[in-house]
Amino acid sequence: MARTLSTRDSTFETEFTALLGAKREDSPDVAETVAKIIADVRSRGDAALVELTNRFDRVSIGAEALRVSESEIDTEIAKVTDEDRAALELAAERIRDYHARQLPPDQSWQDAHGATLGWRWTAVNAAGLYVPGGLASYPSSVLMNAVPAKVAGVRRLAVTVPMPDGIANPLVLLACRLAGVDEVYRVGGAQAIAALAYGTETVRPVDKITGPGNVFVAAAKRAVFGQVGIDMIAGPSEILVISDGTGDPDWIALDLLSQAEHDESAQSLLITTDPAQADAVRAAVEARLETLERREIAGKSWEEFGAIITVSDLDEAAALSDRIAPEHLELVVDDPETLAAKITNAGALFLGQWTPEAIGDYVGGPNHVLPTARSARFSSGLSVMDFVKRTTIARMTPEALKAVGPAAETLAKAEGLEAHGLSVRARLDQLNEGGA
Amino acid sequence: MARTLSTRDSTFETEFTALLGAKREDSPDVAETVAKIIADVRSRGDAALVELTNRFDRVSIGAEALRVSESEIDTEIAKVTDEDRAALELAAERIRDYHARQLPPDQSWQDAHGATLGWRWTAVNAAGLYVPGGLASYPSSVLMNAVPAKVAGVRRLAVTVPMPDGIANPLVLLACRLAGVDEVYRVGGAQAIAALAYGTETVRPVDKITGPGNVFVAAAKRAVFGQVGIDMIAGPSEILVISDGTGDPDWIALDLLSQAEHDESAQSLLITTDPAQADAVRAAVEARLETLERREIAGKSWEEFGAIITVSDLDEAAALSDRIAPEHLELVVDDPETLAAKITNAGALFLGQWTPEAIGDYVGGPNHVLPTARSARFSSGLSVMDFVKRTTIARMTPEALKAVGPAAETLAKAEGLEAHGLSVRARLDQLNEGGA
Repeated sequence: MARTLSTRDSTFETEFTALLGAKREDSPDVAETVAKIIADVRSRGDAALVELTNRFDRVSIGAEALRVSESEIDTEIAKVTDEDRAALELAAERIRDYHARQLPPDQSWQDAHGATLGWRWTAVNAAGLYVPGGLASYPSSVLMNAVPAKVAGVRRLAVTVPMPDGIANPLVLLACRLAGVDEVYRVGGAQAIAALAYGTETVRPVDKITGPGNVFVAAAKRAVFGQVGIDMIAGPSEILVISDGTGDPDWIALDLLSQAEHDESAQSLLITTDPAQADAVRAAVEARLETLERREIAGKSWEEFGAIITVSDLDEAAALSDRIAPEHLELVVDDPETLAAKITNAGALFLGQWTPEAIGDYVGGPNHVLPTARSARFSSGLSVMDFVKRTTIARMTPEALKAVGPAAETLAKAEGLEAHGLSVRARLDQLNEGGA
Repeated sequence: MARTLSTRDSTFETEFTALLGAKREDSPDVAETVAKIIADVRSRGDAALVELTNRFDRVSIGAEALRVSESEIDTEIAKVTDEDRAALELAAERIRDYHARQLPPDQSWQDAHGATLGWRWTAVNAAGLYVPGGLASYPSSVLMNAVPAKVAGVRRLAVTVPMPDGIANPLVLLACRLAGVDEVYRVGGAQAIAALAYGTETVRPVDKITGPGNVFVAAAKRAVFGQVGIDMIAGPSEILVISDGTGDPDWIALDLLSQAEHDESAQSLLITTDPAQADAVRAAVEARLETLERREIAGKSWEEFGAIITVSDLDEAAALSDRIAPEHLELVVDDPETLAAKITNAGALFLGQWTPEAIGDYVGGPNHVLPTARSARFSSGLSVMDFVKRTTIARMTPEALKAVGPAAETLAKAEGLEAHGLSVRARLDQLNEGGA
């Protein structure tokens, strides 16, 4: 079972550091394989895409079938039950409402010398979204990536989703439709990333690629970074629950297991001020693990990476939490707002016992693509900001140039950059000659 | 001399594509050397730092001298002339004023069901800024990195700056002081990045590292990414000037040369609607190149990567500009605002003939750390946003959970994630039992 730590133990610091440093993922080095696939797609285009797709996905298609037609999407979508469709529509609507508030405003103002300063935001022109095939093909992830892109104003949004054995996921295609995805391609793996980054006869290149994927997809994203922008490379999922003893042990257990069931490398942690609750949650996890469908995965994750930490008070909990910098942080305490104010490093906060983390995965509104592996110390979850870029703006007037130009000239000289200084001086000289 | 292109030529598309694709930088692969240095600093800490510093910087210091003392900084700063100090102070003030407007607001609201949603921004706790030594040690770059960090609220800002042969740059140290830098270390290269990322006895680790550096520094930043956040890996500088024939050819020539003088790999481009102006600017560049201090560097850059493109009209210019996605874009035209509205991909815009790009390098206010190598298609210049991160917030009420919980349960089932669904169901069941 999961390990137990207590801040009262003299060994705590050592044990906690070990927990923080635990290597949860062994990524095999596939860089060479991926480099070959990317080079192949770059040089042979569609021909390579077709060949690789037919081989890896056990199908037999031609280039004309790389793109999934609208009528095919219609046919697949028709298979979705009314209940599933309504749930997905509710999720799309709530995610759209939340992300619409993230659109950053342009700014423009005049300084004391009459210079106009500011910046302008524009959407990335074209974006590509990778969607895994098979078991990890989640319609919710399509919404979480595609909706922010469309809210940002991305004009062309292309999805690549492998369809092993020719089998499509109707809910994934419905999510594409609901989110306003413009193009869908039945391609996966590093070849899909290469096509999005460099383009082929059928797939026009994009400027930014987001979305989760296996180790080949992750390596391909790393390799094409620079040619295009990419989102973060996400690691295994994590949850930290902080409790003051008031939460229902079974609810907490289920919240911990809802991360553990994702992946054997997922990490579920509980920090509690109440040793009795620690025991109760541990027992509840064990009980639930007996019947859970994904008990093998969840059990391994809990056993290997799970932990229950008892602390003296909530301040201690907040301090440990900031060191963990969890992807998901549930505050199951009497006054979650007060505790939340003490938290700095967390991808997403879930306040109070009525906010299970699973709400955030689907219908809360906030994004479920969040920083893992302690990166909440310096990065944020996916948002509209990932699909826009800022252009700064400056417009000097003759008066403004007279006021600040000489300082620029001075600094250019100090840095040994003569042309920089001359470009200012030439203009100042004319202003002085003209008596302006 | 620089090449000439015209959109009227049948060969234009081929030539323009070649210009866009020109490989301007050959980075030797130093990954292995860098990996060894990082491993050495991680395992031996200060001892490795001291050894590497003494070897590479030809000094002989002990661990106690790794940190530059406040009194040493005082001594160096006293050497700065009043003119240089005033110029740097003006720059710092204007950069601070500009970036203070970038602080993003927190948001919080209630949805129709009473759920509280929103997000909160917090500063990165500790940041490290790499400052190159020697010729490329620019006080302006210290301000451009350090001021946004401090405006963001970074509590601990550490600078590493190598001091070859023990020689400090007084203006760099003054820039550190003006920007509020908390710690300065006389360490450079991959060893500085390793110390900032992993910490040593003397240097505490940070969460994010920014700042320019040579190929070893860039490789080290790539290597520690994940352990800490990093800013972009900047390529050689670029400028594009778009003119309608109204600009002074000598001013445009100086603006082009102020990029070219940075680096032999820099790229300076002019797009003009006026063939006569094209000739005049070319002649002006040649004339200025005869006397320019850095004529060797600027001449090579202009010859190898410079270009003058004549176009039919400004719409054509805007379309080409978006394909170039320049780091710096000067609009030397009669009505720059109208043209600016047609531009999507650019790091920084400089409007009108009174706004030489060099103003933006020093005292304009906007940041001079900008996306290079066409990455303005998907990324932005350095800003306060690089030193903050967002934590999303959700708080359900029983009523809100009743309203949206069943949809989450439905989607969890569809994705085969049972515990996700159960974590919602357990709460809904209690609400239903309680008749709430």
